[in-house]
Amino acid sequence: MTHTYQTDGAAIYRQSFATIRAEAELARFTPDDEPIAVRMIHAAGMVELAPYLRFSEGFSAAARAALAAGAPILCDARMVSEGITRARLPADNRVICTLHEDNVRDLAAMLGNTRSAAALELWRPHLAGAVVAIGNAPTALFHLLNMLQDPACPRPAAIIGCPVGFVGAVESKDALWADQPVPCCIVQGRLGGSAITVAALNALASRAE
Amino acid sequence: MTHTYQTDGAAIYRQSFATIRAEAELARFTPDDEPIAVRMIHAAGMVELAPYLRFSEGFSAAARAALAAGAPILCDARMVSEGITRARLPADNRVICTLHEDNVRDLAAMLGNTRSAAALELWRPHLAGAVVAIGNAPTALFHLLNMLQDPACPRPAAIIGCPVGFVGAVESKDALWADQPVPCCIVQGRLGGSAITVAALNALASRAE
Repeated sequence: MTHTYQTDGAAIYRQSFATIRAEAELARFTPDDEPIAVRMIHAAGMVELAPYLRFSEGFSAAARAALAAGAPILCDARMVSEGITRARLPADNRVICTLHEDNVRDLAAMLGNTRSAAALELWRPHLAGAVVAIGNAPTALFHLLNMLQDPACPRPAAIIGCPVGFVGAVESKDALWADQPVPCCIVQGRLGGSAITVAALNALASRAE
Repeated sequence: MTHTYQTDGAAIYRQSFATIRAEAELARFTPDDEPIAVRMIHAAGMVELAPYLRFSEGFSAAARAALAAGAPILCDARMVSEGITRARLPADNRVICTLHEDNVRDLAAMLGNTRSAAALELWRPHLAGAVVAIGNAPTALFHLLNMLQDPACPRPAAIIGCPVGFVGAVESKDALWADQPVPCCIVQGRLGGSAITVAALNALASRAE
């Protein structure tokens, strides 16, 4: 028997967001952060994500202003950079992922770190005023925090820090939340990942639902 | 203060998988399915994913054999196709995502369906013996099931069916599990997504951890 199902993309979004707003605990979010939280929950398929979301004061304003002004978006993984919906970007912003550039493997060996961390060295020329989206590697987030301890390192406008997993994810996000070198958002704990990170960026890029 | 953290990629994987094997309920999985489950849990950052994973009998054997024989991998989204680790593929397999091809928007309008579903019409020449990886759109999975109700439609070797979300995800995965047109794996319920789907494919592609 042929399966029947909702085939209208706009209706799917509408019903999804209505379900999230009916089921998730969203009261503690500011009106600016709430649509970001909703999209992150949507990407995860988990209303249970809500209590783990943290947005620093001024995060969404800083990130939205940077994107509107044409800031580049710096991503730690291709799954992040490829997930960003180009049509939502307010200024045809550049989306940059340096992970697969030729010299990253050598750089990683030289630094004694992962390729994900080493790739951030290639962000330096783009980092001033950028929006950072880290959705995979805890080592990338830790390396960024260490780079930013040098006052001479250019500052991004905002950091989405949502690496996922069992080694370093909890610790790197706690470190970002403690340091707060610039406005940021995190998912506390092990949860995170490219889809949740992309969702936060897509929410910041446009208010359209 | 500079943050210190585990910077050895191999050690990060080793510690992550050891944590998962210590914490997750994996006893019910066959030896063939267990490493797939571990990688899916790893990608999700959730040992709580384990009870929702379902592998049909013969799924991993069918998918591994297809990949070894050079089968193409058909993905519903760029986040899936970009996440697959090319170095793990046993036969330099083609990774195909048709979502952004020129005629998909017109095809979607003609079919009265989403672009994600319409894009699968372009899979037909590649579908025989392929490994399907659906990690985003419930409408893609539903459309594939309807395509496969036509006995003249070519059969893939195996289906990873892990769309995520609040509208159609539960239902499309339940439909796949009920139909079982070919060997398959699913995440029951709302959970799923591109990272979990990629993890299953990467586990099937190589036994290396």
